[in-house]
Amino acid sequence: MSDIEFTGDLGRRAQERLKAEQIAWLTTVRPNGIPEPNPIWFLWDGSSVILRSQDNLKVRNIRANPHVALNFNSDGGGDIVVLRGLARIGTEADFDAVSEDYFHKYAEGIKGLGSTPERMAASYSVVIVIEPTKLRGF
Amino acid sequence: MSDIEFTGDLGRRAQERLKAEQIAWLTTVRPNGIPEPNPIWFLWDGSSVILRSQDNLKVRNIRANPHVALNFNSDGGGDIVVLRGLARIGTEADFDAVSEDYFHKYAEGIKGLGSTPERMAASYSVVIVIEPTKLRGF
Repeated sequence: MSDIEFTGDLGRRAQERLKAEQIAWLTTVRPNGIPEPNPIWFLWDGSSVILRSQDNLKVRNIRANPHVALNFNSDGGGDIVVLRGLARIGTEADFDAVSEDYFHKYAEGIKGLGSTPERMAASYSVVIVIEPTKLRGF
Repeated sequence: MSDIEFTGDLGRRAQERLKAEQIAWLTTVRPNGIPEPNPIWFLWDGSSVILRSQDNLKVRNIRANPHVALNFNSDGGGDIVVLRGLARIGTEADFDAVSEDYFHKYAEGIKGLGSTPERMAASYSVVIVIEPTKLRGF
């Protein structure tokens, strides 16, 4: 469960963007302190951000340091939404709970890559679950 | 001077966006490993990213850890440009070299905030210089 109460104008905008945005930027940090922002596909279940990842640097970074940040595209300098969060490597059970919504959300995207949900899940084999811990923006 | 050679399609796109974008996301990292993405105004002089900042967390983070990342808004999942860089706290002399171009670039933005270049420079009192060290994207 998220500690954040999504109240006020910023909270409402954050909820809307967590529901509506196709892409978020997920930043993890290497053990040597280098930040690594990457665009991700994700699903917001109302309290956590769930995503699938190839077994790559992002996963290794999270194993070593669970502190991550999520942000969305700015809109000419406005609509800034940044979430701080704690990430963990999840299980297929974590993903199963949102699988239908996730593959509905990215049906066109997966088709556009010439892939299928099954092949996508096999290639993006690691489930990541992020609990937001702080919201900021303007 | 930047170590990056901006060649190929990605290099050209990176140069274009460094020149044209009004907003970039600058991620610094706290000593405790928490990444902090923030939207910035900046000027690209052809080899470095120069910006002004209030004397805030971003500046403290850079003093403790010069590793930063810059990224631009994605475009529906495409046009991903991420730069890794080394940041340092600069001097007014660093800024003077780009001052005219910077205030020309943000003339409308500064007016929109009801400010002036002089007041903006006084409030955003710290000069930051970022040398890109790696380019990635797709």
